[in-house]
Formats: sequence, C-alpha cells, structure tokens
Amino acid sequence: MDRRSFLRSTALGSTAAAGALAAPAYAQGKRTLTMVTTWPRGFAGLADAADKTAENINAIAGDSLNVEVKHAGELVGAFDAFDAVTAGQADMYHAGDYYWVNQHPGFAFFASVPFGMTASELNAWYYHGGGMEHHHGLGEIFGLKSFLAGNTGSQAGGWFRKEINGPEDFQGLRFRMPGLGGKALGLMGASIQNLPGGEIYQALSSGALDGTEWVGPWSDEKIGFQEVADFYYVAGFHEPATALTLGVNSEVFESLTGAQQKAIEIGAAATNEWSLSQYLANNGAALQRLQSGGVKVMEFPDSVWEAFGAATQQVYEEFLGDELFKEIYDSYFASMANVSPWISKSSGAYRAQRDRVLGA
Amino acid sequence: MDRRSFLRSTALGSTAAAGALAAPAYAQGKRTLTMVTTWPRGFAGLADAADKTAENINAIAGDSLNVEVKHAGELVGAFDAFDAVTAGQADMYHAGDYYWVNQHPGFAFFASVPFGMTASELNAWYYHGGGMEHHHGLGEIFGLKSFLAGNTGSQAGGWFRKEINGPEDFQGLRFRMPGLGGKALGLMGASIQNLPGGEIYQALSSGALDGTEWVGPWSDEKIGFQEVADFYYVAGFHEPATALTLGVNSEVFESLTGAQQKAIEIGAAATNEWSLSQYLANNGAALQRLQSGGVKVMEFPDSVWEAFGAATQQVYEEFLGDELFKEIYDSYFASMANVSPWISKSSGAYRAQRDRVLGA
Repeated sequence: MDRRSFLRSTALGSTAAAGALAAPAYAQGKRTLTMVTTWPRGFAGLADAADKTAENINAIAGDSLNVEVKHAGELVGAFDAFDAVTAGQADMYHAGDYYWVNQHPGFAFFASVPFGMTASELNAWYYHGGGMEHHHGLGEIFGLKSFLAGNTGSQAGGWFRKEINGPEDFQGLRFRMPGLGGKALGLMGASIQNLPGGEIYQALSSGALDGTEWVGPWSDEKIGFQEVADFYYVAGFHEPATALTLGVNSEVFESLTGAQQKAIEIGAAATNEWSLSQYLANNGAALQRLQSGGVKVMEFPDSVWEAFGAATQQVYEEFLGDELFKEIYDSYFASMANVSPWISKSSGAYRAQRDRVLGA
Repeated sequence: MDRRSFLRSTALGSTAAAGALAAPAYAQGKRTLTMVTTWPRGFAGLADAADKTAENINAIAGDSLNVEVKHAGELVGAFDAFDAVTAGQADMYHAGDYYWVNQHPGFAFFASVPFGMTASELNAWYYHGGGMEHHHGLGEIFGLKSFLAGNTGSQAGGWFRKEINGPEDFQGLRFRMPGLGGKALGLMGASIQNLPGGEIYQALSSGALDGTEWVGPWSDEKIGFQEVADFYYVAGFHEPATALTLGVNSEVFESLTGAQQKAIEIGAAATNEWSLSQYLANNGAALQRLQSGGVKVMEFPDSVWEAFGAATQQVYEEFLGDELFKEIYDSYFASMANVSPWISKSSGAYRAQRDRVLGA
C-alpha cells in the first residue's frame, strides 16, 4: 500500500527497517517486543486484556521473549498504534480493530459491527468458520499478523439525559458513538461527535453532549456517567460484542521461532475468553449498584430498534462496493445465520426455562 | 485419602513414585508426558479438544515437553483415567470431570450440573469468580492440578422414540442419562440405564432403551441416533454446558518449570474457547440436516421443565450435607445469580431484538 511505503520511508520507517534486519541476532538472546495499546494504563477491562496478553506470552516464552507494554501515551498516542506497528516503531498493538476503519472498513468485523454477532457467535466464526483467516488476510495488506485477544461482551446502548420514546428523539441529539453505529445514528438525525474517552464526561456534564455510549456498567461506572445522565439503555445495536486485537508487525512475527509465534497466538487466544469472562463477572454487580444509586435502567422501544435496523442497512450498503469488505461481510453474516439459530434453540431456550422454573 | 494411598502402594503406585523421583533428571532434556483420555480416538469434539490441548502445549513448550495422547483403551479404559493419573501411571487426563462424582460429587460442577450455568456463565465463575480455585482445591485432595480445557456447549435433551407430553411420560421410561440429571429423571420414575457410549445405539435400536441423551446434533448425528428414534428434544435441563478438564498429576505438575506449568495452564485455557466454538460452528448445520432427514425437533413442555426442576432440587439436597460440595455449590450458584441477569439484559435482549428486526 502506498501509505505504508510512505511511512516506511520516514523516520519511523527507518526504525522498522533496523528492527527487521537486526531480528535474527536478537533471536539468540532474550528479545524484547514492544506492545503499544489504545488504552490508558490501568483502564479496567481494556488495559487488563492487553496486560494479560503480554503476561501470557511472557509466562510461556519468557526464556526468549519479553513483551513490554506501552499503554496509550507512553510511546505513541492511542490512535497512532496502528501506524507505529505497521511502520515498525513498535512490534505489536493491542486495540479495538474498528479504530482502523479508515485504513480499511473491513477491520470493523474484527471488533464489532451493528446488528452483528455476540461473543460466542463471533468466536465460532473466528476459530472455526474462516474468521481468523480473513483477519490474517486483511492484516497482511498492511503488514500485520493479527489475533483476537479480548472481548468486552455486548456493549450498552448508552447514557441519555432524557428518555427515548421513538426514533424521532434522535433528531438533533448530540451523541458520542464511533464507527458504523455512529454513522447509523447520523442517518437517524443525530449529531455525532467523536470525542476521545477522556473528554466525554466533561462534555456530558456541561451539556455539550446529550448522550454517549461507552462500554458497559463496570467500565461506565468508573468514569462516573451516572453523575451526569439519568437514563441508561442497556442493550444496544452498535457493538454486540467488541473483540480486541493483538496486531503484530508481520516482519517481526516472521522473524520469530515457531514456538514464539505459537506463544503469541495461544497467549492471545487464552486472553480472549479470560477478558470476556472478566466483563461478565463484573457488569452485573455494577449495574445493580448503578440502579440502587438511582440510574433508570431502560430498554429501547421496538420502533427504535427498527429504525436502528434500517439505518444500519443503509450504512452497510455504502461499503458493499468494496470487494474485500463484501467478502468478509458475506462470510461473517453467513456464519451468524448458521450459528445463531442453534444458540437460540439450545442455550437460549434453556436459559429461558431455567429462569422461569427457578423464578430468577 | 485412603483410596489414593492404597493405589500408590500397588503396582500402579510404584510407577508413580518412580516417575516423581526421576522428574528433575528428565527436566534437563525433552520430557514426555502421557495424557490419557475418556474419549475414543477420533471422536468428534471430545477427542478433538484433548488433541488440541496437547497440540497447544507442544507448540509452545515443545523444546522441553512432549505430550503424548493415549485415547480411551490405548493405555487404560475410559473410566480408569482418573485412577491412572492419581496413581501416576499417566501424567494427565482429559475428561469430563463428572465421571468422577463417585470420588467426590463436587467434581460435577466442573463439567455440568442440572439447572446450572451455560458456557459463558461458567467461564465467568471459573476465571473471575473463584471457580478455578475451587477446582484446584478439590483436585488437591486427590493429587490433581486441574484446568478447564474444552466445552461442548448446552447439550441436547435427547432422543425419544415417542413424544413427551407431560412429566408422567417419564414413568417407567428406560432412558440413558449419567450423573445428577439421571438421578433426577429416576426420581421422576424413569428407569435409568448407564450404558457406555458404544452400546447405546444398539440398545435403542433393539428396544432395550426408550431413549437417550448424548451431546448435541453434530455428535449425535455421527452415531446415527436419527435412524432409531424420531423425536429430538433440543434444550435439556441436565447439562447446560459441559466443560472438559485437563487433570494433571500434581507431583508431576510441581516438578515442571514455571514456563512448562504455564504452557499447560494457558494451552488448556485456549482450548476451552476453541472447543466450545467448534460445537457452535457445527451443531446448527447438523440440526438442519437431521430435520431435513425427517427428525422431529421438539421442546419439552413447561410442565416437564417444572418437574425437572423439582426433581433436580431433591437431588441437590442429597449432597448438600457434604461440606465441600456445599461450599462449591454456594460459590457456583452465587456467581450464576450475579452473572446471568446481566447476560439476559445485554446480549440476550440484543439477540431477541436483532432476530426480530432482521426477521431471523
């Protein structure tokens, strides 16, 4: 890609070249690999998944590898992680791959897309339905070897300062939502403002924003959105399960031994479930605390879901002209159509009966 | 435990002692660890998860470890795996831990229990709610270090030669179901017959059995139950997500290096999700094939679920006098009560709206 060639010829690029050339020499001793992330250090769930991925790799390949984590702002800014790794300034990133939709819109499928898959569905596609191969194929174009390494689970619909009774309530609403979901809300008349995480609370507090989505109860409570918005819509259409990615510079990856490569792949895979489980273990209690504190826990009415659906369809149509996007889209939604009915009939039907019989 | 001491003083026991003493010497070269399993070689899903666990460990620790898999009958019989490992004849087993409920009924929680958790719920407990610590605590009594290493997802209610219209239809029904679920059906009047996997088809075909549970569409279709029973009840109460365990002889585990121990722990954890995903990716298409072939895909009526619930409660009460069982039971169901409502409100509500809006 032109953009990549350009980066490689810059100052960043020369670091990359030096790193790549020097790699075989490093391989004889203990080699340090730098992981940059899109999360501030200590950020619940997200930074945890990055740290756990590094910890896993170091635990199993620690004789020869040392992954050093540089969180957002410590080496490069959050959204510079992709450029830093593809240019070779860092060896790998931990991020939500939908941050790179301007590099290619297909990256969204490896984080989360509106009306897309839940975590179990996504993993079925990723590990047994061709998803990982698509991830690798897309990454290759940019010089990346990518693996899922975390999942937030289904993200909440978001915080609102007033109740949402119908699709018309999005008209003129100043809302923060990134990615394809934000585009869909834009089509519904919302004014989408993509502030970085650190600025949202202040904007909501001052009234510059009418609402925002973030992650889920556990993460949202830590930021304190309950102090500046009353209504919390729990189920959302925009990020039904946001996967996190470990993206490794592919020249660096190729320079590793087979066992080191596998330590990265398996260390990331083990983090994937560990991370989802962490959110599931923490969100329930956080939601109860929010509710006890006076937050109104809400569900969007059916008419709003239908409007979300129509707007999302329009957004997809914008991108389906791109051949690679369409290829991933087709594989993704075919897998969802295969896996989802089974989940409904088995664990879905089971949970409904269990909750009914136990009176839960 | 007396039983363990007895085994250690037999021929098996002397192998164990020799292995343990010799371990430090082995550690300098490449050490072979024998994994026995409760699955016949090539058995879809179950043997796959055992093989994948070994493959993961060998891929990341292959410089110093070689896990060799001996499937059921290759070194010891399926149900001898526990004794073989605790006695030191083999180094680790891959099994469903509920096969060892006669050793301790608490083992059931690390496979699946009636009206218990689905896979996501179980993983939240296991990795972030104290479940793994309970697994280690229980294993320690028998000289095991245990890790989850696979999950079949929610198992099907089973195959029946006639329709089930109410709890009274279980009266006198000759049915195959192991574990606590089988005990519950027994309380409902069924005659429970615990045949090994290889004999079920024949018994159902000859009319010696009126029905059986097995795993799910993908596994059940391979055995051919559709040829000998017409009614397939998809959601079941008895195994809402059956986890598979890698149980390592704890003296062997302690003799390994830290990196080797982590290779086992992380190799097993990565298999856990890979295995569940394999079932999810394959069950849907298998169910469609079964249905096209004329199988009647059914749901138990509400009255039957209520009877399952009452009988299950009675079964638990039998075991709650055991202090350790009660401790694990309390931790398990407290975690379920915390995690499950969040799943209903987030991914559950999302899936319902998604399927409604997309007309799926």
